[in-house]
Amino acid sequence: MSTPHTEPANESGDASGCRPARSPRPPRSVAEHRDAVRNLLAAGFRERPQGTEDTDLISARGRILAADVAAPGSLPPFANSQMDGYAVHSADLAAAGNGTGDSAALVELAVAAPIPAGSEPPALARGTAAPIMTGAMLPPGADAVVPIEQAVPDSFPAPESTPPAGAASPPAVRLPSGVPAGQYVRGAGSDIRAGEPALNGGTVLGPGQLGLLAALGLDRVTVRARPRVLLLTTGDEVVAPGHPLQPGQIHDANTTLLRSLLEEAGAQVQLTRVLADSPQELRDRLHADLAAGQPDLVITSGGISKGAYEVVKQGLEAEDVHFLSVAMQPGGPQGIGRVAGIPFLAFPGNPVSCVVSFEMFLRPALSSVTGLPRPRLQLSAVLREDSRSPAGKHQVRRGRYLPPAVPGGTGEVELVGGPSSHLVHALAASNALVHLPAGRESFPAGTEVTVWLLDR
Amino acid sequence: MSTPHTEPANESGDASGCRPARSPRPPRSVAEHRDAVRNLLAAGFRERPQGTEDTDLISARGRILAADVAAPGSLPPFANSQMDGYAVHSADLAAAGNGTGDSAALVELAVAAPIPAGSEPPALARGTAAPIMTGAMLPPGADAVVPIEQAVPDSFPAPESTPPAGAASPPAVRLPSGVPAGQYVRGAGSDIRAGEPALNGGTVLGPGQLGLLAALGLDRVTVRARPRVLLLTTGDEVVAPGHPLQPGQIHDANTTLLRSLLEEAGAQVQLTRVLADSPQELRDRLHADLAAGQPDLVITSGGISKGAYEVVKQGLEAEDVHFLSVAMQPGGPQGIGRVAGIPFLAFPGNPVSCVVSFEMFLRPALSSVTGLPRPRLQLSAVLREDSRSPAGKHQVRRGRYLPPAVPGGTGEVELVGGPSSHLVHALAASNALVHLPAGRESFPAGTEVTVWLLDR
Repeated sequence: MSTPHTEPANESGDASGCRPARSPRPPRSVAEHRDAVRNLLAAGFRERPQGTEDTDLISARGRILAADVAAPGSLPPFANSQMDGYAVHSADLAAAGNGTGDSAALVELAVAAPIPAGSEPPALARGTAAPIMTGAMLPPGADAVVPIEQAVPDSFPAPESTPPAGAASPPAVRLPSGVPAGQYVRGAGSDIRAGEPALNGGTVLGPGQLGLLAALGLDRVTVRARPRVLLLTTGDEVVAPGHPLQPGQIHDANTTLLRSLLEEAGAQVQLTRVLADSPQELRDRLHADLAAGQPDLVITSGGISKGAYEVVKQGLEAEDVHFLSVAMQPGGPQGIGRVAGIPFLAFPGNPVSCVVSFEMFLRPALSSVTGLPRPRLQLSAVLREDSRSPAGKHQVRRGRYLPPAVPGGTGEVELVGGPSSHLVHALAASNALVHLPAGRESFPAGTEVTVWLLDR
Repeated sequence: MSTPHTEPANESGDASGCRPARSPRPPRSVAEHRDAVRNLLAAGFRERPQGTEDTDLISARGRILAADVAAPGSLPPFANSQMDGYAVHSADLAAAGNGTGDSAALVELAVAAPIPAGSEPPALARGTAAPIMTGAMLPPGADAVVPIEQAVPDSFPAPESTPPAGAASPPAVRLPSGVPAGQYVRGAGSDIRAGEPALNGGTVLGPGQLGLLAALGLDRVTVRARPRVLLLTTGDEVVAPGHPLQPGQIHDANTTLLRSLLEEAGAQVQLTRVLADSPQELRDRLHADLAAGQPDLVITSGGISKGAYEVVKQGLEAEDVHFLSVAMQPGGPQGIGRVAGIPFLAFPGNPVSCVVSFEMFLRPALSSVTGLPRPRLQLSAVLREDSRSPAGKHQVRRGRYLPPAVPGGTGEVELVGGPSSHLVHALAASNALVHLPAGRESFPAGTEVTVWLLDR
């Protein structure tokens, strides 16, 4: 039999602490519960830090860099040309003409052997210009590049017509005078110097970061292990998808929803189970799974409301888990604590309540404590229709966010489905959570509200 | 030997068409080239439509639903209770009291056997109220639910004290009068009815959509096959990460960058190769790989500039591929066409040019033609420093976007690194592309510009 409204006097303390029986406490605010979930995870990861994994670069996409990486070499590794053109001694092109007219005077230089990318060129003799390709090493002595478009002629001599360096009457090229030293040269280390910090530990590795590691010559990287989650769905009425329903039964959406959300958020779902409404079985299974898998976090769905058969509440009476109400709709009933020392969260059983609980509490905690996922993008949007929210509660509706016609404008949001937490079809048609915060009951069309984009 | 500025008279026509040699054409605009890339991919996928794959729900996250899915059954499958409370005949609670006072009169009903979720209850006799749990099937005859909080007493009788239905002197409960029919009842099919469209083909499957499929009892789903890409990086100077450099050589960042970007965008990179600057080898390898793998798209990086050794340009002279300039910086040189009938794109060789080419041209085309990825989030942001863009070019800088302090405000963006396309460390420190469009050269601090978020 359930005992509604039995929040402990102090949720971070011992549930067995002395307090008047059945004395209803005001529900916890959304912010208070979010802090409690973050603190729980932070303590868990402090006590048992995440391990690391060594992986190839491609497999590391979306993972978190475990430790600072310093550049093993400089980028670029050597001074090279930014353009297809001629490598020169800038002193050879010192202002030779009037220097004041609308076109600089041209200086004729002998053409040296061309420098393809990937080669190590000989020193450039004074008075010569070497055809050089973008990215090719600047020859010793050269300190500037003149783009091919500024040369006369403005195309390279055919390679076979270029005699060996020092041969008689090499072809000549005329180049503009007044070229400053360093023009179109990418200095060695101009992007990053050997030994400098390349990436900080904790960085989420996207294509750009992986590209940098590759450019630095690294083909493997050490990332943080994913947080491991044990996910339990409860309810005698719950049947796995793919199996037929008996009257009164429904298919299990929560395992798929929560597992997808967790994996999208960078966690690893170690094991999922659907458990019947037997408190004893729940307790036994949970302890066995915890001992076997040592997850970082346990999440249950269902069995924490005010009914007569609340399997999670009843099964975990003796554990350090507290069941409480959050001033939120849906997702008001919540459980939080530890089982066998492992952080434990209990979400309500309705699919939309699970999603809202995950987004409002667990996802921000994972972001903050483990570095993944990125917080949802939060935008302002104008409500397209009148809406109402229950007194004293932060209502979270599902909606379709419509971006502004031009960047910088304010988008709109239309609510999809009603506030009820079983509307999983409406959830699937939504791309945003719409916040109707506590302290206000009427939200007429045109009200600017905060939305969280579910796909960003 | 290269021939700069040899854009064909008509890029969608035959490169061998009659035109004056070396007659420079104005560079193509960013929008024109984006259209050309989209049209190329659209034609390719029209001629050879994407296949499909059958997969479990969890593996389908981020994939595209291949065809419309109709609901095989209704959700909820049966009328059920929205609350823990009492299932009643609303007629038994018709206004029995004054109906006008500040508290409704109470009506006493006999308590029937409780209805747990997952069971099929017997019909509810008139004059009785059955304890019912959230999600449990409404018994035949019942048409409303009174929440336990409104009952007197406001907790359920212990199950063992509830006598079998029809037994003498059952426990009684007092419930408020004036309960409307349908109160706290979730009607069968109130979320979706059997046969109604559940998800449209082309939908990107996130947690919410997968949760709906699970709720509908489906444990597998048919998704579109990923577009298959052949990715070639060129250059004598390019060495795979993990291998030592000789003087003049650099490590290959492009394969990692482009493969990560493509995979993040939902494509499957079938094969990657680093090729030396041999036009003959490039041509031979490419045709062999195309025959073996039949990719949907080929992408090369490097070898399309104005130098003397432009392996992609030279190797594909005889193919239906056009090399042109786009009025964009970086990423101006581009190649587009078909090889052996397969859509072909050539990107420039600098890492940042590859990323900008991918983001500006290929990613939007993939979004539009295949349905994945979602377009980058485009936001307005205020430049934190003065910047300049070359005349007539759309400059794409890398920057760090700083969101507004409150949703609805305008964020800021600070540029990271210079405009040069070799700055891969600066790229890795950025989270946005910053657009300085053509037609304007000066962008003082405070200018509002459009940014594309690279991680959203």
